[in-house]
Amino acid sequence: MKEEPDCTPVWFMRQAGRYLPEYRAVRAKVPFLTLCKTPVLAAEVTLQPVDILRVDAAILFSDILVVPEAMGMHLVLDDAGPQFPQPLRGPEDLKDLHVPDPEQELRYVLEAIRLVRKELAGKVPLIGFCGAPWTLAAYMIEGRTSRGFERAKAALFGDEKFADALLSRISAALSLYLQAQLDSGAEALQIFDSWAGALSPADYARLGAPYLARVVQSLRRARKQPVIVFGVETGELLDQLAATGADVLGVDWRVPLDEARRRVGSRVALQGNLDPASLFLTDAELEKRVMRVLEEGRRAVPGHIFNLGHGILPSTPVESAKLAVELVHRGLPAH
Amino acid sequence: MKEEPDCTPVWFMRQAGRYLPEYRAVRAKVPFLTLCKTPVLAAEVTLQPVDILRVDAAILFSDILVVPEAMGMHLVLDDAGPQFPQPLRGPEDLKDLHVPDPEQELRYVLEAIRLVRKELAGKVPLIGFCGAPWTLAAYMIEGRTSRGFERAKAALFGDEKFADALLSRISAALSLYLQAQLDSGAEALQIFDSWAGALSPADYARLGAPYLARVVQSLRRARKQPVIVFGVETGELLDQLAATGADVLGVDWRVPLDEARRRVGSRVALQGNLDPASLFLTDAELEKRVMRVLEEGRRAVPGHIFNLGHGILPSTPVESAKLAVELVHRGLPAH
Repeated sequence: MKEEPDCTPVWFMRQAGRYLPEYRAVRAKVPFLTLCKTPVLAAEVTLQPVDILRVDAAILFSDILVVPEAMGMHLVLDDAGPQFPQPLRGPEDLKDLHVPDPEQELRYVLEAIRLVRKELAGKVPLIGFCGAPWTLAAYMIEGRTSRGFERAKAALFGDEKFADALLSRISAALSLYLQAQLDSGAEALQIFDSWAGALSPADYARLGAPYLARVVQSLRRARKQPVIVFGVETGELLDQLAATGADVLGVDWRVPLDEARRRVGSRVALQGNLDPASLFLTDAELEKRVMRVLEEGRRAVPGHIFNLGHGILPSTPVESAKLAVELVHRGLPAH
Repeated sequence: MKEEPDCTPVWFMRQAGRYLPEYRAVRAKVPFLTLCKTPVLAAEVTLQPVDILRVDAAILFSDILVVPEAMGMHLVLDDAGPQFPQPLRGPEDLKDLHVPDPEQELRYVLEAIRLVRKELAGKVPLIGFCGAPWTLAAYMIEGRTSRGFERAKAALFGDEKFADALLSRISAALSLYLQAQLDSGAEALQIFDSWAGALSPADYARLGAPYLARVVQSLRRARKQPVIVFGVETGELLDQLAATGADVLGVDWRVPLDEARRRVGSRVALQGNLDPASLFLTDAELEKRVMRVLEEGRRAVPGHIFNLGHGILPSTPVESAKLAVELVHRGLPAH
């Protein structure tokens, strides 16, 4: 994100979240979904880690499931995790799903973006985001997080027409939604294909990558508005993710960045990939691990954005997160 | 397991389990841990899938956590999943862990093995099993299943001496336990490193592979007593797993078998790797997927054992599991 060639930019997935006392103070007042839907509060928690950790980017506080909700699904977000109490059962449920107009039905997100941009005043860029088509479709069919994804896979593997209709409709919704985020001031976008790794490469080539690519390629954006794609357990999918038209590929901590580079060439910059559990180690051990990622990332052409290999864990000590940012900014020792 | 060159042997991980009405009938009478500890019942459920599905191997019904329990930890297995209510906190807790004598403290497992062998009368081989050192250590420190494994990683990454002491003690326990299983009649062994994929390759090289290799290489076994190693999300770890001295490498469904072959060469046979969700598809779609795995497995030198890429899911239709076995036995169509 930053332009200085000698300083790797850093931000953390879920950096606006539960590990921050300042976030918990806001959350104590309102339920999660209300927080997402109240622009002034969403903006407030979005900005917290920028001030506290001194990261090089803000990422909008929101949830990937607000899109299926805007499409017409009933969403419940409580302590048991997000749920759709009436999950999709098959083609007959498509009639209840529309492509929402983001300026109307997701206006609260766009307002939060405008508020954050105003507050940031150019200090660091703001990243908008959404979930990828496969991940959202899987959630909409399973109704909740799943271990085997057997419902989603049974519904989508077995009925190509339904799969294409559902994934196309979600993709259309995401294209409008991300475009509206860009037009409202988002300076970068990350698309989370959180459950990409539940699919084999052959299935991802049918149900994941094509729709993700369609969304990425639909966007009218300036050269300075990069798109990042990220999923976990995607070691075998990196080449497909790199071919979507995204500028940056997020890599989980399972795949060393130099191995990821070998798999995808220099089509995309790499983002990642410190094991989130590293933030629970001693300062000395954390430093070693940050330096290792920086070292591997240095060989990443056309570039490297430092991040965790997955979202920051809820019990992460804030001091460790701050230290990690400092260490990245300090950079590798001169040789 | 079978010797016919034109028929790929097949069994399923967790084939003795909740998807079978016959298993649920037994489980309705006794708690899970009682079932593990009652040889006649453990033997009964071990044999069920051999008769019902006609698989080519039995795998002992048990749980990987009986070893930590025998080492001295209090184990609770209930509907909330397995738990150690007093997880390990650090080096000071090592004094409470001993290396159990399997003939005494895990005798119920050995008795179940002897019963199953007698009942099977050579019809199909019996596979014994255990969890791998890293997976058991992680469980013992976390106390339950985890998302980020931050406790286990903090404890083991940061304190090499503690990590080596704990993993060595677990390895010693596993060596004795597996040797006793072989000596009691187990004709093959599978070691489940279920949480291998939580570690980066560098961390697995320190905390996973060396201890797993120590266990495998400690065994005095006949050439006809193969050892299988398996973990999920192990795409980046396959070379390390293949170098442990195991004869067979289990591969999850994320890595196509021919890709796995490219990564590990011909040191090991491959086992896997049908996506468990495939058993929820139509017969025609299931057949396509079984054939694809057989096709990829045919190129696996020195051999291929058909299996799922992970445990069979609890809501799997029994008829689909039976069909999958039939399809494997029918084999690829002649060219």
